[in-house]
Amino acid sequence: MTSHELTRIGVFTSGGDAPGMNACIRAAVRRAVAEGLGVVGIRRGYAGMIEGDFVEMDRQSVSNILQQGGTILKSARSDEFRTPEGRAKAAANLRAEGIDALVAIGGDGTLQASTHLATEHDVVVVGCPGTIDNDLFGTDETIGFDTALNTALDSIDKIRDTADAHDRLFLVEVMGRDTGFIALACGIGGGAELVLIPEMLTDVGAIKERILSLMAAQSRSSIVVVAEGDELGGAHMIREALSEDPAFDQIDTRVSVLGHIQRGGSPTARDRVLASRLGAGAVEALLEGHAGVMVGVVNGDLKLTPMRNTWSRKKTIDYDLVQLSALLS
Amino acid sequence: MTSHELTRIGVFTSGGDAPGMNACIRAAVRRAVAEGLGVVGIRRGYAGMIEGDFVEMDRQSVSNILQQGGTILKSARSDEFRTPEGRAKAAANLRAEGIDALVAIGGDGTLQASTHLATEHDVVVVGCPGTIDNDLFGTDETIGFDTALNTALDSIDKIRDTADAHDRLFLVEVMGRDTGFIALACGIGGGAELVLIPEMLTDVGAIKERILSLMAAQSRSSIVVVAEGDELGGAHMIREALSEDPAFDQIDTRVSVLGHIQRGGSPTARDRVLASRLGAGAVEALLEGHAGVMVGVVNGDLKLTPMRNTWSRKKTIDYDLVQLSALLS
Amino acid sequence: MTSHELTRIGVFTSGGDAPGMNACIRAAVRRAVAEGLGVVGIRRGYAGMIEGDFVEMDRQSVSNILQQGGTILKSARSDEFRTPEGRAKAAANLRAEGIDALVAIGGDGTLQASTHLATEHDVVVVGCPGTIDNDLFGTDETIGFDTALNTALDSIDKIRDTADAHDRLFLVEVMGRDTGFIALACGIGGGAELVLIPEMLTDVGAIKERILSLMAAQSRSSIVVVAEGDELGGAHMIREALSEDPAFDQIDTRVSVLGHIQRGGSPTARDRVLASRLGAGAVEALLEGHAGVMVGVVNGDLKLTPMRNTWSRKKTIDYDLVQLSALLS
Amino acid sequence: MTSHELTRIGVFTSGGDAPGMNACIRAAVRRAVAEGLGVVGIRRGYAGMIEGDFVEMDRQSVSNILQQGGTILKSARSDEFRTPEGRAKAAANLRAEGIDALVAIGGDGTLQASTHLATEHDVVVVGCPGTIDNDLFGTDETIGFDTALNTALDSIDKIRDTADAHDRLFLVEVMGRDTGFIALACGIGGGAELVLIPEMLTDVGAIKERILSLMAAQSRSSIVVVAEGDELGGAHMIREALSEDPAFDQIDTRVSVLGHIQRGGSPTARDRVLASRLGAGAVEALLEGHAGVMVGVVNGDLKLTPMRNTWSRKKTIDYDLVQLSALLS
Repeated sequence: MTSHELTRIGVFTSGGDAPGMNACIRAAVRRAVAEGLGVVGIRRGYAGMIEGDFVEMDRQSVSNILQQGGTILKSARSDEFRTPEGRAKAAANLRAEGIDALVAIGGDGTLQASTHLATEHDVVVVGCPGTIDNDLFGTDETIGFDTALNTALDSIDKIRDTADAHDRLFLVEVMGRDTGFIALACGIGGGAELVLIPEMLTDVGAIKERILSLMAAQSRSSIVVVAEGDELGGAHMIREALSEDPAFDQIDTRVSVLGHIQRGGSPTARDRVLASRLGAGAVEALLEGHAGVMVGVVNGDLKLTPMRNTWSRKKTIDYDLVQLSALLS
Repeated sequence: MTSHELTRIGVFTSGGDAPGMNACIRAAVRRAVAEGLGVVGIRRGYAGMIEGDFVEMDRQSVSNILQQGGTILKSARSDEFRTPEGRAKAAANLRAEGIDALVAIGGDGTLQASTHLATEHDVVVVGCPGTIDNDLFGTDETIGFDTALNTALDSIDKIRDTADAHDRLFLVEVMGRDTGFIALACGIGGGAELVLIPEMLTDVGAIKERILSLMAAQSRSSIVVVAEGDELGGAHMIREALSEDPAFDQIDTRVSVLGHIQRGGSPTARDRVLASRLGAGAVEALLEGHAGVMVGVVNGDLKLTPMRNTWSRKKTIDYDLVQLSALLS
Repeated sequence: MTSHELTRIGVFTSGGDAPGMNACIRAAVRRAVAEGLGVVGIRRGYAGMIEGDFVEMDRQSVSNILQQGGTILKSARSDEFRTPEGRAKAAANLRAEGIDALVAIGGDGTLQASTHLATEHDVVVVGCPGTIDNDLFGTDETIGFDTALNTALDSIDKIRDTADAHDRLFLVEVMGRDTGFIALACGIGGGAELVLIPEMLTDVGAIKERILSLMAAQSRSSIVVVAEGDELGGAHMIREALSEDPAFDQIDTRVSVLGHIQRGGSPTARDRVLASRLGAGAVEALLEGHAGVMVGVVNGDLKLTPMRNTWSRKKTIDYDLVQLSALLS
Repeated sequence: MTSHELTRIGVFTSGGDAPGMNACIRAAVRRAVAEGLGVVGIRRGYAGMIEGDFVEMDRQSVSNILQQGGTILKSARSDEFRTPEGRAKAAANLRAEGIDALVAIGGDGTLQASTHLATEHDVVVVGCPGTIDNDLFGTDETIGFDTALNTALDSIDKIRDTADAHDRLFLVEVMGRDTGFIALACGIGGGAELVLIPEMLTDVGAIKERILSLMAAQSRSSIVVVAEGDELGGAHMIREALSEDPAFDQIDTRVSVLGHIQRGGSPTARDRVLASRLGAGAVEALLEGHAGVMVGVVNGDLKLTPMRNTWSRKKTIDYDLVQLSALLS
């Protein structure tokens, strides 16, 4: 915890967009304005920080965005920010603009980058976990996770209709490069016959056996939910592995990669409330003199976690849910 | 905790239906079948228990219901069950059917009634919190709450469109007879200008002042979310109170009572996972010899709470959210 | 058909808002800009016309509104416009602003008012049918009808869940003051046991008989869809009429008035395409020298209808659908 | 038109499933039952016809399916039915079951197959157009088209959120092997910058130029909607073609193939009404002695078209919509 005078803060989003980022921006801006702080929106994340793409914000700037997906401040990749020169330019811009502190909304890449900036240039940053992957330590849920989950589940419900109509096997790939949070919850919520996640070994033999026994016994459809970061490399790879086995010749197998639709859409109630709490909480943390922390919600309460821990510590899935998924399918 | 031999259990839903009840039934049935237990579905709650409206259930009986709103076992009111004779008849039917224990899915009325049955006739019961109102102590969320919340919020988003188009004041009544859980989350999630809940005093003067200042300053729409159990008695009563003030003559005020649509619909991902955990958890509690408890999820973990506490102890809203709602609107 | 030089047009929405109005505004603006015309947005309908509440519009002004409910130009009632003085003021403002012609988007009230303006002050107007009620002659569907229908149907699906769970009778009131278009399509689409619409006599005796026979025979839920403009006066009145009969004492009857949620929400694909065609079509009609007409889609093609006919001629429901509804329920 | 005694009909679905097929089955069954006809459900299309997979149906068999996607009668491919022997077996089964006539619900493959059966074995068939592709001559819309369109559009709206957040170019592939109905309506409804359909030549040079000029001028996101049957071969092929041009090195381009989610889901109001009309209409056509025809809705009215015309004649897209799409984007 550091002490710092606060008169003007910057807010930005970075990394993959997540539904609820706008609700978070809105809460941060309104909470700051209520305390008499000036607020600068930094557009396109670190790229905009380097280019000085700044916009003054007030209560009205964030009207009517609570329910919108995406991020009005936009996001972008920035190779230049990976260099010390890029970060120096960004820090200079922040100083020139009179920005005392930052609210950074994004995933682990965003928080890591902000930590470099903080360390090298003494910039005060508080982070908000904004990523559909739910893979940040220090918060029970990240902004966007609940919405992405419901979008994926809605698609799985639709696929179930067509799978049932044709007694097909569907391999549905959902997001989750390193974690199975979306896949696991979708699997239970969608009644999937099998869920494949990065946290568990993918034993192709066992998968085949399970599918064949299900399809044989019940002569019906099966849905396998696959996290994109599954060991074998996603739904298409699983399909290839299955197709090498002649036992699967008779099984009408289809792949559906849900992809980018999981990022968009109006946030759910839960994501809007979470994002509102976190956005306001980040400003409150700054006001209380905190820096280098991410604000999260743990067991219902706001909690600060040192930035570094958010990516270095592993947030684990609930293995009871893995068992439950197998028991109920 | 009592000890009891378990070979055959009964499952039923009672009270107001809630999205996710089917997912809970499915999980209880499949979890029980996996342990070699017989399962009897009791139709129409306590009414069916008295009439012996029983149906044998297996894994297939609960296929394809996970995503459906309502309850396949139906629910009903039973005045007869309020009498000792009614409960005696119910207990006799259970014995005759060879039912050793019950999984009761419903709200506080359901759990209270089951406690009478347990006390008077030594029936083993474990409860699952199924009610959109989220007003049971012993679980962070009840089955159906998240879905009802999203349904209400979706309606509020739609009303915002028309409120904005006409610069109108809308009083939107959501469910919550004794508690403001839905109203409060909807208020934050929908960006409501004001939220009126049973837990807070309703000062008509303050309400008027707030609305008038908002409408004057910004010449725009306002949405007030009112819990049905608000002190004044719901949205229509608020409107009446406002209309007595000539200052409101110029304000185009409309009432929208969302009503029963909040009970239906396909459950959200969160409700499906919660209901699956609780249904399976209830059976596990029975297997471990528990009785007279409700299974809930507290801080992410399954937890048993003595039945009586679930309604006698007050589950409180998060007053930080009340403040947040006021700050952000 | 009159001839007129066209360099600058005004666009406005009036009356009850309808989903798709923004798509219509967008199409009119972009179509006009593509022809080199200037475009002025008139805010809050006729009220804004009298107050000179004008805003210059270009392609960018209508970016990202296609999918939004409500109307960015807002709508309002104007008592002043009902007076010759009010209309004279409006006409003077239009002349002062250099507006040669108007695209009026709204329902019958909007088109009637614009006809007064046209007649008295020689203002060139082409209308677009924007109302969820679908009650304008000269177009197979009005902008917003399809969305309102799907919103109402989604609510009826939800109510079906809870009606089934409790074997209840639900009286669901949908919009339609003078016409049963929404009610009839909702009734067929929702599998309603009965549909009551303004176009048909409401014989309370026959209604009772039908409901009693359904509930008796099948001991299940029933849904009666009631247009707000039903002869008896809506769902609450029907309920009262039923409650006077002791035969209904045993039937758990509930009323749900869907109300304003039917006006909002993101427009359906059909409404977006329709609104885009009509907005562009209105500008094309102006370019071709037409005036005093409404542009509609009849049997798939754009068609112009003299303004007066749109409200003086009666658009009839399809009586085959009434029969179909009865046959299938 | 042939004359035939009618006492017992068969109903089946075949080919790709489409939302609304269940509503069509329900209407056909209930309409037939109301006329005193017996109804046999043939499961899994022609495969079930050959295997004698028949199920007796009555009013209750089709309760509560109106709102469900997929088809309760299931669908399947049948290579055996492509042989004269297979069809002979099917015809024998129909005779043995006492089935006088068939209602065939499906796309062009289904109708062609039924025509072979009719020709070779004098089986009376009336068809209902059930396919999301909308590519059958003789009906303005096919069952499932409106739902698929709205599902695709909802995905495009979500993709727009993330495209905007990152200023990306998205190539979104929607269904439509031979026709651009879905793509074109989605393009207009989603405000796509470009729509590529099988009916139009795909000039890669022109595409590149258009995209580059859009992205340069406005430095913003672009969405290109591609029908799967586009000349170049879908979104992935387009991407490859673009990536060969160094001008696209700077443009962050993503592909999203919506795939099977377009087949499922609860049907829209429009699809439910259409399917109900067609299912009932097919039975009425049989009752009136028709055979070898498909029932469609043309300009709002039921219309019979000789089976052969439904696939041999080309249903054309509305080229005015192609122009409109270009004008408004």
